Amino acid sequence: MTAQPHAAVSAEVICVGSELLIDRVNTDLLIIARMLRSAGVRVRRGQVVSDVREEIARAIGEALRRSDIVLVTGGLGPTFDDLTREGVADALGRQMSFREDVWEAIVRRFRQRGITPPDSNRRQAYILEGAEILPNYVGTAPGQVLEAEGKTVVLLPGPPAELTPMLEQVLPRIAHRFPQAAGIETLRVACAGLPESVVEERCRQLIEAHQSPGRLEFIILAQPQIIELLVTSCVPETREEAEEVCRRLTEIFGEDCLGLNPPPLPEIAGKMCLRAGVTLAVAESCTGGLVGKLLTDTPGSSAWMRGGVVAYSNLVKRRVLRVGRSTLKKHGAVSAECAAAMAAGVRKVLKADIGVSITGIAGPSGGSEDKPVGLVWVGISARKHTLVERFLFPGQRWQVRERAAMAAIDLLRRFLLRSNG
Amino acid sequence: MTAQPHAAVSAEVICVGSELLIDRVNTDLLIIARMLRSAGVRVRRGQVVSDVREEIARAIGEALRRSDIVLVTGGLGPTFDDLTREGVADALGRQMSFREDVWEAIVRRFRQRGITPPDSNRRQAYILEGAEILPNYVGTAPGQVLEAEGKTVVLLPGPPAELTPMLEQVLPRIAHRFPQAAGIETLRVACAGLPESVVEERCRQLIEAHQSPGRLEFIILAQPQIIELLVTSCVPETREEAEEVCRRLTEIFGEDCLGLNPPPLPEIAGKMCLRAGVTLAVAESCTGGLVGKLLTDTPGSSAWMRGGVVAYSNLVKRRVLRVGRSTLKKHGAVSAECAAAMAAGVRKVLKADIGVSITGIAGPSGGSEDKPVGLVWVGISARKHTLVERFLFPGQRWQVRERAAMAAIDLLRRFLLRSNG
Repeated sequence: MTAQPHAAVSAEVICVGSELLIDRVNTDLLIIARMLRSAGVRVRRGQVVSDVREEIARAIGEALRRSDIVLVTGGLGPTFDDLTREGVADALGRQMSFREDVWEAIVRRFRQRGITPPDSNRRQAYILEGAEILPNYVGTAPGQVLEAEGKTVVLLPGPPAELTPMLEQVLPRIAHRFPQAAGIETLRVACAGLPESVVEERCRQLIEAHQSPGRLEFIILAQPQIIELLVTSCVPETREEAEEVCRRLTEIFGEDCLGLNPPPLPEIAGKMCLRAGVTLAVAESCTGGLVGKLLTDTPGSSAWMRGGVVAYSNLVKRRVLRVGRSTLKKHGAVSAECAAAMAAGVRKVLKADIGVSITGIAGPSGGSEDKPVGLVWVGISARKHTLVERFLFPGQRWQVRERAAMAAIDLLRRFLLRSNG
Repeated sequence: MTAQPHAAVSAEVICVGSELLIDRVNTDLLIIARMLRSAGVRVRRGQVVSDVREEIARAIGEALRRSDIVLVTGGLGPTFDDLTREGVADALGRQMSFREDVWEAIVRRFRQRGITPPDSNRRQAYILEGAEILPNYVGTAPGQVLEAEGKTVVLLPGPPAELTPMLEQVLPRIAHRFPQAAGIETLRVACAGLPESVVEERCRQLIEAHQSPGRLEFIILAQPQIIELLVTSCVPETREEAEEVCRRLTEIFGEDCLGLNPPPLPEIAGKMCLRAGVTLAVAESCTGGLVGKLLTDTPGSSAWMRGGVVAYSNLVKRRVLRVGRSTLKKHGAVSAECAAAMAAGVRKVLKADIGVSITGIAGPSGGSEDKPVGLVWVGISARKHTLVERFLFPGQRWQVRERAAMAAIDLLRRFLLRSNG
């Protein structure tokens, strides 16, 4: 992780909602940070505050003293504990007024669903003095943008489905207000199947040669089986250099590289199947359906995905996938032989061109000295080739399962790459 | 959401890491907030700051002025951009010193893995003046606890696998330092398959009769297909009342209720299978493996989970699940008839006692006027009974899939409940 000097234009995000301090993960912060970066604005701080009017007002006041833009989300609902409007009014010392036109828009939205809005929704029609209204086409609470003491304050609803389209209305306003906020661009190169330390070592020299805080910056992010390198050109002058560095990175990592700004790995593998005109079937033991789920996350996956068999018990491995009783007896369910047989079995039974299999020990129990928790075999079967690979994943049950699923999809990607290349 | 007055003892969490403002969701805040609540401490604010020494110091200084406890996570790694130690030292005006014993512990950890630690790791052996060291049994960076100006400052590593066990070391220290921080307890009643508005309406009277800010508080949280009611007794005097309210809630919701502090729905359904001595098989179309994945998230699920078939194409529905060609032709794959045939088919093919099926249109394309996106049929088949239910879920592809999977598992739960009751 590279330290980041502040860009000329800085923003802070304040997410309002007690539930974010009790039982719900906050995803708004990242949604906003990503979109603001694309507009050349860096979020320097993100906050979560509870539904207490004084807390909201205090956090907004503090953020305004530090940053150019303060974006507040959540707390714009109709109930008594939605206090963001009041908190902003307190922080800025401004009045709010009931806007008949906003109320009419809310009533129309409800009517479309055949309901009359309860009186409590009237609270959502209160607009801060001097604020511009951002229409909400998904929910009822409108957004608000206003200038105060040379700073920009933005109020947006918290649900991501409402937040994202409304951010798109905010960005052009920010670009207009802060013309200097241009030029930050982040490119992303992703690698699969390598440990973070190996990725770091392979590209350290290149990064050291180009790293220049405030101009060209690097970040390494690890996800299950995927390592991402983020290359940020902080000023327009370094844009070409960033592109050249990314080109070099894709060369350095070769087959391990998923490309520049790539889609998720399952989507990459799916597109490769589509291009190659092959259909896929999956046989899963320890991952219990996760590989199938990941592959069918992509819309349109029915074009190449036949389906799968979750062979969680040996009975299913034998009866449905036709794994030989002797294979299971001699080598066990977690073995190269069983993985190969499962992949071949699912390919034949589901009449697919390629079969992918996973069998392993996700834990926490079931491990032995010979076959420890985390041991996973992945198999790929095509008409003329079979490929089997052994993995040993660290971590808890869910981590082993996640890594195993991604490793299987990556092995499929490599198999398709080689057979097409 | 209910507004929350501040408890006698308040805490703030500061999560350090630029990646949390670029590309990674922050989960530490919730982990900490939950564990502190269990110790009677409320987190009033959570912050994310980037890896900039002055930013870290400033955020800590501000938090100390507002709250009794400041918990800082992340930025304790060995690389140059891990600056939490320095930030805390700046904020408190304290020195750090290199501790030979801490460094030896780090060297030992590395040796266990057969490696010599690089010199950069020496940074992790610097301890703040007056701090107590919390040993880290998972990673290398130790935690630190210290008192400053009557406040408590805690430094913990960011990775959840290290953070969670170290929080357990922190809690008794907090209980000792703040004996008044006792008594907050949150009970949780969960319902399945009801819209949030219906849940709210059914229990509104009960909540209004008992709601008492600072004494007994209520929160309603919606998750896919699950609505949770959190009942918090903020002082020991309301504990019994909270329990009584929860008992009443479980009565109000009857079969829709998952119980008091219930485990995840898939685990509930699994345990019911185990108790009833029945085995399960799943046939999934639009969810692509998600139901199988959810059911096998629970360790030990092989005791009742036979496996499943992901019948993403009609070919698999016909060939493996033996759904009749005429059923598909006459009613289509998304129909009550097909759901029933899939459930019966998977039950027989996998030799299970109960078959569960899902077939639907997850979108974004594939919908029609008759069969819109979001339409899902769920089937349950046992030897003597078949149950089929129709759902129409709102939202995007991933939301429809998540809701459909949970709805299927809930229908299984209800089926088992009725057949045992």
